[in-house]
Amino acid sequence: VILTVTLNTALDVTYDVAVLTPYASHRVGAVSRRAGGKGINVARVLAALGETTVVTGLAGGPTGAAIRQDLAAAGLRDALVEVSAESRSTVTVVDPEGATGFNEPGGGVQPQEWEAFCASFTGLARTADVVVLSGSLPPGVPTDAYARLVGIAAAHGARTLVDSEGDPLLAALSAHPDLVKPNAAELAATVATDDPLTGALTLRSVGAGAVVVTLGADGLLGVTAGGAWRARPPERVAGNATGAGDACAAALAAGLRARTPWPVRLQNAVALSAAAVRSPLAGDFDHPTYRRLSAAVTLEDLHAIDLDR
Amino acid sequence: VILTVTLNTALDVTYDVAVLTPYASHRVGAVSRRAGGKGINVARVLAALGETTVVTGLAGGPTGAAIRQDLAAAGLRDALVEVSAESRSTVTVVDPEGATGFNEPGGGVQPQEWEAFCASFTGLARTADVVVLSGSLPPGVPTDAYARLVGIAAAHGARTLVDSEGDPLLAALSAHPDLVKPNAAELAATVATDDPLTGALTLRSVGAGAVVVTLGADGLLGVTAGGAWRARPPERVAGNATGAGDACAAALAAGLRARTPWPVRLQNAVALSAAAVRSPLAGDFDHPTYRRLSAAVTLEDLHAIDLDR
Repeated sequence: VILTVTLNTALDVTYDVAVLTPYASHRVGAVSRRAGGKGINVARVLAALGETTVVTGLAGGPTGAAIRQDLAAAGLRDALVEVSAESRSTVTVVDPEGATGFNEPGGGVQPQEWEAFCASFTGLARTADVVVLSGSLPPGVPTDAYARLVGIAAAHGARTLVDSEGDPLLAALSAHPDLVKPNAAELAATVATDDPLTGALTLRSVGAGAVVVTLGADGLLGVTAGGAWRARPPERVAGNATGAGDACAAALAAGLRARTPWPVRLQNAVALSAAAVRSPLAGDFDHPTYRRLSAAVTLEDLHAIDLDR
Repeated sequence: VILTVTLNTALDVTYDVAVLTPYASHRVGAVSRRAGGKGINVARVLAALGETTVVTGLAGGPTGAAIRQDLAAAGLRDALVEVSAESRSTVTVVDPEGATGFNEPGGGVQPQEWEAFCASFTGLARTADVVVLSGSLPPGVPTDAYARLVGIAAAHGARTLVDSEGDPLLAALSAHPDLVKPNAAELAATVATDDPLTGALTLRSVGAGAVVVTLGADGLLGVTAGGAWRARPPERVAGNATGAGDACAAALAAGLRARTPWPVRLQNAVALSAAAVRSPLAGDFDHPTYRRLSAAVTLEDLHAIDLDR
């Protein structure tokens, strides 16, 4: 079982309009409402890979109900914990020229609600092989939330992947997660370096078991206890990069569960990320692209680097 | 008891942003979610006037639940009928330069849901003194919906006000509503004339007991069986015209309930509309403006016109 945690769930609403005209009134054509937040996207990909997946996190109000309704429609197992504040929505207005996004801040979580979540999470962690902790923290959740959850998961024998940035990611390292997966921008926002390798080594030195830095169309960098690799897609893939990072996290989580050797795990992650770029919706991926690229990702062994420098 | 009917309820969402930039991502500041649709706005104003008010109409899905939650928060009596399709939302993005609106189409109503509504409405009509039927019809509701509801209401002794336009308004006239209240543009979209007086006389000739045509900042025109009047505000009022028509409908409904003499009723309607313009949200009005203008609206008796021409 892979348990994905989305503390800052969202209802992702997409509006199709003929043309976006500021200060005009628009008749919306197609409307899509989809449960979102990074961990939910990860769970969608995992479910499509055939992994047994459970979704937890926080949801509240009618928007929380809409999120849960969509999880049910997608066949995802819902272990979300109810909070009093209304969950946030994101609205994306799409016209032929592009997408315009509006992101709500989200409501505050009460201290007793956070404690109730931790209690529920402890129960779920008992049955989990891998726990994936994804995304930002909503207001009211303490900065060391991921550290606490990683500690609980590890105490119950689950391996952990943290996909976040900044202070919540740094705080999580003290609990020694098995894997952290920032992209290059998130890494730079977390440690004071623009060099992915230096940044990855820094995160390992302060507690991460392994670090995967995603590099967009250039693939990724993996730094583990047993070696370091650069994996690159065999070709440039055009499409929608939203959700590529979540697909990467899903591949890495599946690899953690199956204890796939790191080189294969990294190649898989690059192929699945590229396949997600070929799909318009976060949480989906293009299966033919995934199959085609899986065997074609190039791997460079960075054996010369000193992992403990 | 005044019963307001909103078949096409909406959740009116307002986002404050620093500046609207097409094709960018926006962090939303303040978020407001409010139950909307013309009849709900009318009910808010009526409740603020001290009228006993019941809200009915159709609502569905998590958005319907959000609408009902807001009605409860506003202390409005909720007799909405549940439907399977999700209620529509409207999103208004406000920056210092103005407002940009996105209006969802709304889901379809099933025939048996419409029948269930009519059954529920029949029960509610028994206790109503006045029934206010406001706004557009959602997909799936027949064009003669207001005609049927006016007939049911009249059979139970309730007086009726229809605030709609186009085919649903025309169809309603066959059931002889006591009052219809188009604005000048709605009137022109319903009967083929740009002259409000000609249009009002036409609507009376095909079945309306009385016709009030709102004329924006110029006040209104009232044509009744007992006479015709022009009522004008004593001054130009600056502000947000959204909701002014609903405030006018509320004043007219309260006048129908209390059988206030027409001249006073029309003056009240102009004062309350102007007070609504002074309030940023539809369904609210500025009480000092209402009190100040109530005695100051000018009335012109159009005694020279032939009401049966």
